[in-house]
Amino acid sequence: MLEAATAEFAQYGIAGARVDRIADAAHSNKAQLYGYFGSKEELFDIVFEESLERIVDVVPINGDDVADWAVRLYDEYLARPDLIRLATWSRLERRPTGHLVPATERLDTVKLATIDKAQSAGRITSKAEPFDVMAMVIAMSMAWSPVSNVYAASADEAATEHVRRRDFLRATVRKAFME
Amino acid sequence: MLEAATAEFAQYGIAGARVDRIADAAHSNKAQLYGYFGSKEELFDIVFEESLERIVDVVPINGDDVADWAVRLYDEYLARPDLIRLATWSRLERRPTGHLVPATERLDTVKLATIDKAQSAGRITSKAEPFDVMAMVIAMSMAWSPVSNVYAASADEAATEHVRRRDFLRATVRKAFME
Repeated sequence: MLEAATAEFAQYGIAGARVDRIADAAHSNKAQLYGYFGSKEELFDIVFEESLERIVDVVPINGDDVADWAVRLYDEYLARPDLIRLATWSRLERRPTGHLVPATERLDTVKLATIDKAQSAGRITSKAEPFDVMAMVIAMSMAWSPVSNVYAASADEAATEHVRRRDFLRATVRKAFME
Repeated sequence: MLEAATAEFAQYGIAGARVDRIADAAHSNKAQLYGYFGSKEELFDIVFEESLERIVDVVPINGDDVADWAVRLYDEYLARPDLIRLATWSRLERRPTGHLVPATERLDTVKLATIDKAQSAGRITSKAEPFDVMAMVIAMSMAWSPVSNVYAASADEAATEHVRRRDFLRATVRKAFME
């Protein structure tokens, strides 16, 4: 059910998602789905929270090498473009300003502590606030993401394209934060 | 009419926009609007193309200082969050992969030539393809944009916030591309 909901929300957004399509895809029905999750909005909340947890689990930050973290994020967007689309629908439809994820649900404590520690140890050269460093490295990893306003990479492109972008991303993050 | 359409599409997206709300806001009516523009989709095309032209006009690239260009883009997103939202709706609803803007409508010839020239002159140190450099500098300028998946800056925040981000953005782009 959550898989079907993720696919539906990633494709159509919150307003555009249809609960009956989700129910059909999950071989269930609307009544059952509402029984489990309450409403379409609540179902989106669950799907979105799960997607945030997945990204943190699958692509943990590495304070010794934030350039490598950026490259692993690039690869995760190729593998799961749906997750980054979910986040962007949430931004457009729900939270036009400020933090995308409210404080109580934010999963960035580890990231911020890791960046702070790496700055103290000189492994991240920038003196900027850990939050800004995190936002910037993530932004750089998203230069060709599925929600880029320039070019969205996809897994079906030639491997040479991905190699070129990974190398450039790694070199640029290194130069900006590790030299 | 285009102003009302820009506001409506920026808020609700293409599928979510309502032609009658646009007509009301513009003190017009649906029949007149369809007479002028053909369809909601065509109206979006016009509004989106206009928004791309505005960004190129208001925030031209500067090959001598791409860090300054990035900071001016940051300021443009604060001034006109609606334009960057339009582009992102187009990405989510219409073009999940590849270039956001089809070749015939792309306005990046000047940007790419400027970056190429600046690379030859050593004012941009990266040897990467001009297109990748452009995508990366734009991505960096968007670290706190109205479509950021981390934090969306807004004009009503304290001036100190914007000064801090501008300084960090300028320093980071300089370090990555100009040193």
